[in-house]
Amino acid sequence: MMNKKFSQEGMWKMKSVGIVGATGYAGVELCRLLLSHPEVEIKSIASQTFAGKKLSEVYPAFYGICDMELISPDDISGCDILFLALPHGLSEEYTAKVIDSGTIVIDLGADFRLEDESEYEAWYRKTFTHPELHALSAYGLPELFRESIKGKKIIANPGCYPTATALGVYPALKTGLCDPKHIIVDAKSGVTGSGRNLSEITHYPECNEAFAPYKVAEHRHTPEIEQTLSKAVDGVRITFVPHLLPLNRGIIITSYIDLKDVVEEDYLREVYEKFYSNEKFVRFLPKGKVANLKNVKFTNYCDVSIHVDKRTNTLVTVSTIDNMVKGAAGQAVQNMNIALNLPEDMGLDIVPPSF
Amino acid sequence: MMNKKFSQEGMWKMKSVGIVGATGYAGVELCRLLLSHPEVEIKSIASQTFAGKKLSEVYPAFYGICDMELISPDDISGCDILFLALPHGLSEEYTAKVIDSGTIVIDLGADFRLEDESEYEAWYRKTFTHPELHALSAYGLPELFRESIKGKKIIANPGCYPTATALGVYPALKTGLCDPKHIIVDAKSGVTGSGRNLSEITHYPECNEAFAPYKVAEHRHTPEIEQTLSKAVDGVRITFVPHLLPLNRGIIITSYIDLKDVVEEDYLREVYEKFYSNEKFVRFLPKGKVANLKNVKFTNYCDVSIHVDKRTNTLVTVSTIDNMVKGAAGQAVQNMNIALNLPEDMGLDIVPPSF
Amino acid sequence: MMNKKFSQEGMWKMKSVGIVGATGYAGVELCRLLLSHPEVEIKSIASQTFAGKKLSEVYPAFYGICDMELISPDDISGCDILFLALPHGLSEEYTAKVIDSGTIVIDLGADFRLEDESEYEAWYRKTFTHPELHALSAYGLPELFRESIKGKKIIANPGCYPTATALGVYPALKTGLCDPKHIIVDAKSGVTGSGRNLSEITHYPECNEAFAPYKVAEHRHTPEIEQTLSKAVDGVRITFVPHLLPLNRGIIITSYIDLKDVVEEDYLREVYEKFYSNEKFVRFLPKGKVANLKNVKFTNYCDVSIHVDKRTNTLVTVSTIDNMVKGAAGQAVQNMNIALNLPEDMGLDIVPPSF
Amino acid sequence: MMNKKFSQEGMWKMKSVGIVGATGYAGVELCRLLLSHPEVEIKSIASQTFAGKKLSEVYPAFYGICDMELISPDDISGCDILFLALPHGLSEEYTAKVIDSGTIVIDLGADFRLEDESEYEAWYRKTFTHPELHALSAYGLPELFRESIKGKKIIANPGCYPTATALGVYPALKTGLCDPKHIIVDAKSGVTGSGRNLSEITHYPECNEAFAPYKVAEHRHTPEIEQTLSKAVDGVRITFVPHLLPLNRGIIITSYIDLKDVVEEDYLREVYEKFYSNEKFVRFLPKGKVANLKNVKFTNYCDVSIHVDKRTNTLVTVSTIDNMVKGAAGQAVQNMNIALNLPEDMGLDIVPPSF
Repeated sequence: MMNKKFSQEGMWKMKSVGIVGATGYAGVELCRLLLSHPEVEIKSIASQTFAGKKLSEVYPAFYGICDMELISPDDISGCDILFLALPHGLSEEYTAKVIDSGTIVIDLGADFRLEDESEYEAWYRKTFTHPELHALSAYGLPELFRESIKGKKIIANPGCYPTATALGVYPALKTGLCDPKHIIVDAKSGVTGSGRNLSEITHYPECNEAFAPYKVAEHRHTPEIEQTLSKAVDGVRITFVPHLLPLNRGIIITSYIDLKDVVEEDYLREVYEKFYSNEKFVRFLPKGKVANLKNVKFTNYCDVSIHVDKRTNTLVTVSTIDNMVKGAAGQAVQNMNIALNLPEDMGLDIVPPSF
Repeated sequence: MMNKKFSQEGMWKMKSVGIVGATGYAGVELCRLLLSHPEVEIKSIASQTFAGKKLSEVYPAFYGICDMELISPDDISGCDILFLALPHGLSEEYTAKVIDSGTIVIDLGADFRLEDESEYEAWYRKTFTHPELHALSAYGLPELFRESIKGKKIIANPGCYPTATALGVYPALKTGLCDPKHIIVDAKSGVTGSGRNLSEITHYPECNEAFAPYKVAEHRHTPEIEQTLSKAVDGVRITFVPHLLPLNRGIIITSYIDLKDVVEEDYLREVYEKFYSNEKFVRFLPKGKVANLKNVKFTNYCDVSIHVDKRTNTLVTVSTIDNMVKGAAGQAVQNMNIALNLPEDMGLDIVPPSF
Repeated sequence: MMNKKFSQEGMWKMKSVGIVGATGYAGVELCRLLLSHPEVEIKSIASQTFAGKKLSEVYPAFYGICDMELISPDDISGCDILFLALPHGLSEEYTAKVIDSGTIVIDLGADFRLEDESEYEAWYRKTFTHPELHALSAYGLPELFRESIKGKKIIANPGCYPTATALGVYPALKTGLCDPKHIIVDAKSGVTGSGRNLSEITHYPECNEAFAPYKVAEHRHTPEIEQTLSKAVDGVRITFVPHLLPLNRGIIITSYIDLKDVVEEDYLREVYEKFYSNEKFVRFLPKGKVANLKNVKFTNYCDVSIHVDKRTNTLVTVSTIDNMVKGAAGQAVQNMNIALNLPEDMGLDIVPPSF
Repeated sequence: MMNKKFSQEGMWKMKSVGIVGATGYAGVELCRLLLSHPEVEIKSIASQTFAGKKLSEVYPAFYGICDMELISPDDISGCDILFLALPHGLSEEYTAKVIDSGTIVIDLGADFRLEDESEYEAWYRKTFTHPELHALSAYGLPELFRESIKGKKIIANPGCYPTATALGVYPALKTGLCDPKHIIVDAKSGVTGSGRNLSEITHYPECNEAFAPYKVAEHRHTPEIEQTLSKAVDGVRITFVPHLLPLNRGIIITSYIDLKDVVEEDYLREVYEKFYSNEKFVRFLPKGKVANLKNVKFTNYCDVSIHVDKRTNTLVTVSTIDNMVKGAAGQAVQNMNIALNLPEDMGLDIVPPSF
């Protein structure tokens, strides 16, 4: 593993972290980011499938850098921070096991995201098995809900699509100038969004030089997006259509919002500039610029551009993130930093490559 | 050049075609398709930039197959069919020169597409130089306007985005069940759509692993789309946002249409099935299937799927074409076949590769 | 299925073909090509995995074009031509079942390629189960062994790497000017070469923006290449290293051959030009040009360029094919045409797209 | 610009750096890496083409991170370290201007790489304009020539191909067991290797889904590779054939070396392990593993695997780097660290992403 700056006894002790689901794409991205984080130490990495193997055997990019052995998820214990990067339906149980010992849980899955159990049931076909834990949790989208995250023991790390959509649309909705009843969210995601599991749709010859929507108006991120946007204005309803992009990393959301009256683009630009003036990780782009997912790859940034179509009085917002970083592991580290009272950008101060 | 089936004197004589702008991407695709067409013969290919060179020197894929020499556009004459594959603003002049000699002109550019000169002026910053020619022309989207194409001397070959959008949306608008005042057209096109000209945006390291919208709500295909859709129902207004996809060929249009009342998807499916029941080149997909651009590549097909979002009472249509074939050269050949009273699919009967 | 030109009773009757393994990548490419072939009719397509489904359900590109139902391989019978597109070890049995009824078998697998059973055993870990059939078979590389193919009942369709390597290197070896003892064959193949089966190495995020050799000096095509090249000159030994290219289709072989003495490139150019002067499907490129796999995609062409490194007296040959066409299904059709006494390019007269 | 850890007066003062050619791909990658380097500060960035613009206007990935203005190359002065990232032929003049003021020059171009002026003349068609400067320079490949770099005022940063080739082949040649007279170097590079300049060959639709060699046995890196390898054993001659890979970053070199006698792979493995045992940036892979360029992307690592082909007694070495990092900007930073007596990996301690 990489050298950490300092960790002497008697002085500051680095916080220990564990990762359950460390060999999924979100888990492995967490490993990458945490290895460069100066104040935490990866204590345990766990994987159901690969327990007993080294991380670098599963992902050779880590060879010589992190040759740590993967353990069984059941053997995880005693961490200051526990990241769960699991399919939905498994996180409540893991959380219940560790929460009393003071461990802070950051769940990259869906189980703690929805406040309304009936929505969870409708979209995920499961009920809350530990409802009492949900009262202890916060929805970890710092740019919108920072204060509610502080001090929480359980942080629900948002979905990739909901993160990108909310950061693009929320400030506009807050103005009250938009019609919330029908927002179009046309989303495009790179293939890492589908994860490590093999499938025909992600077989190279099937998705290279190909492009299509999937789960049209049926994707499980729909209620999560509506929940977040409804904090800005009541009664938001969206039509959400995701598409699979033939590239590895990145999400772009193009949203279409009816403006109730004629609104000048410049006015909305001021709103966004003010809203994000103190947010390091959101870059609201200058007039005439359009967000491109290549400019945020491998980083925790979200780039946002807005455009008013005067002909139809429509606000078009474009927001883009790296689905694996701001859409998963990076935002989880940001939430960990909040939970540990560290600078929010610690370990995330990454310059995006231009190519 | 490839052997043609038969062309003996005294019997049927093959028709002669010329192409101006033969080395642009649309022009070179025309060459590819016409070389396999059994009833026409390429007589002349012209290029301002490459006159004097062989086609196979400019595009080595043609080596040994079509080593014909490119001539100057000014030297084109005496063809039965003349294809113009030029930047806008040049086609009226070329057309005027040949139209009296009986040559049929098929223009792949924008000059004859818009009926309303003021729209042309507003979006293209030019006026009609030969207004009398426009009266002789038809808009060449056979599946919608076949009868009006027959017998015309000038055919305006539609733009790529307008073709894909219209084929996806038109049948729904015809029902009268849709709100025409605000249709969202979220378009994604492969890089060949930007043509052969070098630019930073199409430099490989800039557009590989990248994705972004461009010309947000400002693209010149906007009035052409509105003109076509307004033949189905009055007063169509769209918000049109194209995106550049990191792949070579293909366009997908995802359109969002407000339904005036609750409409069953099955009812709309029947409408589409009937509308396209005799159209070889439009494949309306079965319930549960989603159009994917990979399934139409290198062919003249347009695949269409429709999906009703019951939560918001929205019709989502997905339509996809190969931008170089049904979006340009293939449709031009289809129009030529109509003009020559040949079977419409002659030379276009291509099985799409699965990968 | 597509319309065939004519098939009237009493006149010429189209030949019937069957395909076992029709849903593998080679099988499906055969379907694509045969659907456009004017003199044969696909009678049966068989698949172990997908029997009972339509081809167009497995590969939606065929929707509305070939919605034929897949049958069980055991139910194949009564075809004039039977294509076998199977993993090695299965073809002898299928061949034995049909050979007496007059069916011509074209095997796209490895079972009939090696003459020497001990080589087959060494590399494939199997023995010949029907040695008598091997006496009836020919190795189907028409440009090199056309005469021996004619009249044969079993044709072993060559491997993709062996086809591209042999067409690039054979004419040089024939001169006697090359040292056969150690030829370097550095090969690069697109991902379709790995077939339809899901694997980690062909999962999109793993092989996009990635590149590596595999099976270094251990690939099973090694003895097949040596067998073919040893027909030109005795005792050829190669070091063969294939690499996986992040693209769908195409193989490039870069070979390095020590010249025994100083040999002028122009002399070798004459040798190649003469050797391939009557071969439609091999394009020997002019001086200064380098073969590029993009120029042969979707076609049966093999482009070859040669280059002498005077500093080291080395001949570098570059040869490229579409691995699915000249490297599999296209060459199989070419062999079928030979077997049926049809023009060798029938159904294969395809202009390669330039992009 | 990003915050640097500390830079207080009276204590350690950060070193100032300047970059001439900051908007070329190597220059912009230098900016990316140096912004994260804790002990240096970018003082000036210069560009002939873009002087007067902000870096973030030319490369929007830097927006809000480095909005520094580009100056004219003539206005660069007073830096502790000056990086030159220029086309060949320009570096001697820039170096002459600053060398007397104590500035250390690191040249990413070719001008100081070749020791033998006649080789420079033969391959670059230029002579040394300041021969006296060459005596002050070192060839900056730290893993092979670290001692000679220390204390030098001018460091010639190696070419990308020469770096990858030398790190893969050098240890084997040192054993004396290889025939140096004819080594085959089959190289494959991502498109960023061609730089920022627009060209037909790097136009997306031309190089996507394409692959070919270029400058066969004529590439200017040939003499540089031979110069380096001849430090291991006399009289190395190579045949060097580079290919353009359809991906952004990364080089793989597959080299083929005749072994004089039968040599066990395990013996050579020990040689490599020992040779690189203290080298952080070279990862010699375990038996059975093959180097893949995806595992070093965005980092300064070079992964090396070796394989003995017993059938032909050939050593195959596979070595891979990120052409923009270890092949350009990263190695330049490594050389700067050596020149400044800083830990060699400072600012380069990057965990490679797995996807």
